[in-house]
Amino acid sequence: MKFARFLFLTSATAMSLGAMGVGASASELRETALEYFRPLPSTVPAVADNPITEEKIDLGKALFFDPRLSASGVFSCYSCHNLTTGGDDNMETSVGHGWQKGPRNSPTVFNAVFNEAQFWDGRAADLKAQAKGPIQAGVEMANTPENVVATLNSMGQYVDWFTAAFPEEGDPVSFDNMAKAIEAFEATLLTPAPFDAWLNGDDNAMSSDELAGLALFMDKGCVACHSGVNVGGEGYYPFGLIEKPGSDILPEGDMGRFAVTATVDDEYVFRAGPLRNIALTAPYFHSGKVWDLNVAVKIMAESQLGEALSEEDTDQIVAFLGALTGSMPEITTPVLPAETASTPRPRQEVIPN
Amino acid sequence: MKFARFLFLTSATAMSLGAMGVGASASELRETALEYFRPLPSTVPAVADNPITEEKIDLGKALFFDPRLSASGVFSCYSCHNLTTGGDDNMETSVGHGWQKGPRNSPTVFNAVFNEAQFWDGRAADLKAQAKGPIQAGVEMANTPENVVATLNSMGQYVDWFTAAFPEEGDPVSFDNMAKAIEAFEATLLTPAPFDAWLNGDDNAMSSDELAGLALFMDKGCVACHSGVNVGGEGYYPFGLIEKPGSDILPEGDMGRFAVTATVDDEYVFRAGPLRNIALTAPYFHSGKVWDLNVAVKIMAESQLGEALSEEDTDQIVAFLGALTGSMPEITTPVLPAETASTPRPRQEVIPN
Repeated sequence: MKFARFLFLTSATAMSLGAMGVGASASELRETALEYFRPLPSTVPAVADNPITEEKIDLGKALFFDPRLSASGVFSCYSCHNLTTGGDDNMETSVGHGWQKGPRNSPTVFNAVFNEAQFWDGRAADLKAQAKGPIQAGVEMANTPENVVATLNSMGQYVDWFTAAFPEEGDPVSFDNMAKAIEAFEATLLTPAPFDAWLNGDDNAMSSDELAGLALFMDKGCVACHSGVNVGGEGYYPFGLIEKPGSDILPEGDMGRFAVTATVDDEYVFRAGPLRNIALTAPYFHSGKVWDLNVAVKIMAESQLGEALSEEDTDQIVAFLGALTGSMPEITTPVLPAETASTPRPRQEVIPN
Repeated sequence: MKFARFLFLTSATAMSLGAMGVGASASELRETALEYFRPLPSTVPAVADNPITEEKIDLGKALFFDPRLSASGVFSCYSCHNLTTGGDDNMETSVGHGWQKGPRNSPTVFNAVFNEAQFWDGRAADLKAQAKGPIQAGVEMANTPENVVATLNSMGQYVDWFTAAFPEEGDPVSFDNMAKAIEAFEATLLTPAPFDAWLNGDDNAMSSDELAGLALFMDKGCVACHSGVNVGGEGYYPFGLIEKPGSDILPEGDMGRFAVTATVDDEYVFRAGPLRNIALTAPYFHSGKVWDLNVAVKIMAESQLGEALSEEDTDQIVAFLGALTGSMPEITTPVLPAETASTPRPRQEVIPN
């Protein structure tokens, strides 16, 4: 019962932080923060049912960058999860096959391995399940598992890479293994931030404004939904808990997690946005309708907490969010194999449903 | 008079190589090859009117990867000159703004700095002139210089980068300087190949089939158009000199360099394709209609030399072309600055002419 947990956390937050206030000492603030947040680990995290190896990471990187995973040859995972621009595509909703627009804002791939589930409605349990979605979505990459496997099998280098990454399997080149390799690569996409350095004990890693913002973030109750290693991404909450935002921001046609669970309680419920690198990943919300982070913070405070934030409080919370902008991992572009005579050719036509 | 030069070279080739034949010794073959080809230099080449500095290269890399140079936010230089797939996009003609298809096959960016001029019809004198084309083309990135400059000026990091790259200019953020920085980055995209190692004196760098193919490439006269450091890219020649290929391969509506010079002699004249990494950059020709390199070689022999190549000769020439596949430079993805409140937003609508 995520909703019940939210209410519990809200009142617990109010109790534990109300007395502490913004003026608490650094060590008190850190102690409280560590009740809600965890720093990024220094190593690649383990994922369920998919032991991560160097071979899988290398293969996954190749796949992540390969536009031939799309029917058209235009889009790769990288297209909408652009590693140069915060791991997303900096537009309202993504442009896909046939110039169609996707229904929701593309989330960042950085640190996504720490989300409880993937997609705005959590319909994929993990990154390997997520990876299969956009490849098959008609408005995104518009491909089929069969065509992907034929594409990969047509290039000897890919067959070798899959064999090295899945050495104990008789038929290593499969859609499932493609997804596992992509998950392995994505699990390496971690961006340690000043907030991590501060959580790890470096008092000088964050400015006084950023620390004041952190205290406010906990005091006001933002932490009720945005906690854990990703400062979000861990639970489901109704957007508009206290006051529903306008349909410009919360389009009526997108009922969120209701589409997954068919439970009335899940109407307009979404996974809390993970906030690492949020300063790099405008526009905001599942609808991608808000470009200004200050405005997004105010909307959240009103709709979820019923509070009109002052300009100063908003600025400080935004300063704290800036301390979640991490160092990007060094990524070298892979060298992909060339097509062969048996590689399926790009298909750019749009087939009506 | 490119055409006269072609005839001269053809007869000169026939004279100098006819006696030598395929069985010539390695040193004789190398001596002859060095009359026509030059190995890649070991350093970044100088370009006209644009001293190359580390600051320019770094800025150029950021710009090359930045999809915000397109009106839609979908396409960067990298989209059609994909550094993971041979520097092109592996499709007939590129897909651009509004899912429109471009008129000609995207050429590779690798080693393009050595081409005499840019585009299939040579209408850009160099890479800095070329870089401005696709950004403004309605079927490609559909942007305007004004919007690009506004985009770059909206991000302080870009202003700093331009200032560092053009330190003596009062107004460093300009469309011209954007193009110069992109040219500087592109000039670093060199791919030394086994053919270079062999030209530089390593007898073991190429196989006997590859060397036999090289001898045939010179003997048959391919070298008349495909010479120099890029094994092509240095002159203009009519496609279909001896026998015009069918309109499936040479579409009648694309008159090539005629559109640049309005000279009847330039009807269906194109810049000879630079052949480095040709094995990675199918499909072939300006029309992108041929996926099989063996077929492309046969078409060239028939249309340009009036010769029907045997299977064996074709295989050996293709083996030689394989020795032009180079080592890709190690490229780390840049970290681009985030948009600000004043950054122009993506515009994905298609405006009719």
